[in-house]
Amino acid sequence: MPNPTAAMLVIGDEILSGRTRDANMHFLAGELTKHGIDLQEVRIVSDDTAAIMAGVNALRAGFDHVFTSGGIGPTHDDITADAIAGACGVPIDVREDARAILAAHYARSGTELNEARLRMARIPQGAVLIDNPISRAPGFSLGNVHVMAGVPNIFQAMVASLLPTLTGGAPLLSQTLRINRGEGEIAKPLGDLAAEYDDLTFGSYPFVKDGAYGTNIVIRGQDALRLDAAMLRLHGLFPDGLR
Amino acid sequence: MPNPTAAMLVIGDEILSGRTRDANMHFLAGELTKHGIDLQEVRIVSDDTAAIMAGVNALRAGFDHVFTSGGIGPTHDDITADAIAGACGVPIDVREDARAILAAHYARSGTELNEARLRMARIPQGAVLIDNPISRAPGFSLGNVHVMAGVPNIFQAMVASLLPTLTGGAPLLSQTLRINRGEGEIAKPLGDLAAEYDDLTFGSYPFVKDGAYGTNIVIRGQDALRLDAAMLRLHGLFPDGLR
Repeated sequence: MPNPTAAMLVIGDEILSGRTRDANMHFLAGELTKHGIDLQEVRIVSDDTAAIMAGVNALRAGFDHVFTSGGIGPTHDDITADAIAGACGVPIDVREDARAILAAHYARSGTELNEARLRMARIPQGAVLIDNPISRAPGFSLGNVHVMAGVPNIFQAMVASLLPTLTGGAPLLSQTLRINRGEGEIAKPLGDLAAEYDDLTFGSYPFVKDGAYGTNIVIRGQDALRLDAAMLRLHGLFPDGLR
Repeated sequence: MPNPTAAMLVIGDEILSGRTRDANMHFLAGELTKHGIDLQEVRIVSDDTAAIMAGVNALRAGFDHVFTSGGIGPTHDDITADAIAGACGVPIDVREDARAILAAHYARSGTELNEARLRMARIPQGAVLIDNPISRAPGFSLGNVHVMAGVPNIFQAMVASLLPTLTGGAPLLSQTLRINRGEGEIAKPLGDLAAEYDDLTFGSYPFVKDGAYGTNIVIRGQDALRLDAAMLRLHGLFPDGLR
């Protein structure tokens, strides 16, 4: 059975303006690979309701899972929950269980659960909460859309809460061989080998080190024995190119 | 006149698998902001012809410019040029001026311009070459689609070649104020101020430092005087929350 597929929707003007370098996509990609869920597309959109709705609707129709990051805090620019509800055509309001989580959290620190903070208890109808062990304000899953915070340590904690509840597949395995030859020199035999092992994917990543060209070849697949066999052949092709 | 809009298409299995953390998007975002071109969406897709074609066709119809990175080298997994030609419905073949650039480059180092390397001279009909001062193999612009390499230092050099040829707009200016208050505490007055200055955008980015909550407020816009005025008001709202 093929692995479940996934896409990610990153929501944030701060990424698109170059102010912040996204960290959540790279983290999620690694976790999904380990869990056997194939991340096939990522979209980054601005803090704009129409852009979020268009993105989530395209992705939830095309992939088994959609993971979002960003825009679920208490301020005016946190519009993700409402946009997701709108995209999925369900109502959204403060939900009692989410309010209770926030009320308990703020009571502990003697902080007022004011109107802004209460916005974080707005949950689309039919959603399942995602636990946030860091700052308590929950994420949620609505159908196949999993909505999480943008702050990296909270995003990571939510992924850790969510991922064990999702059915994974065979982890995508990879092996890397560094060859001290430029891509142009190894391209032909490498392409022939990739065509022969067409159940695996062969990635070719050139680099320059100390003025010399080299290439990292990454072979990916789900069958460890096939990976070993392909890697053995690859070694045989370039015996003089290895470290 | 509003600034030109842009999207980026990042092509690379290695990003989606979590092996590599993308650097080109963050670099391009910063350069476009300085040049007055508004980056409004980014998509990351795998090394798959159908995915690349679908991505570039959606984006070139929706934005003034599309910038791509990745997949224009000599190996079997370098399929971007052909996919872009296919998406735009134009033929692609080895082009004499691109071949001459490669031939001169490899002649200098006594390297054979073999079949694999010659693939890098495949240019869609009607495209304009983008200079590559690093490894010579050119990128190209086909209509509003600008196709560049994925290796970061080559991508950056191509952006430097290309960007001065594109009409920019007013650079997007920004000012940041760090407030030593949590988002939930400042959300209401901040939202009111953002509503009043609705020609600017107000981003709110929470952080935790030494166990205390804080928020960076970033105000963005094209009019320096309006930014100054909004920033003055923001200072006035939270006189005790500043460093």
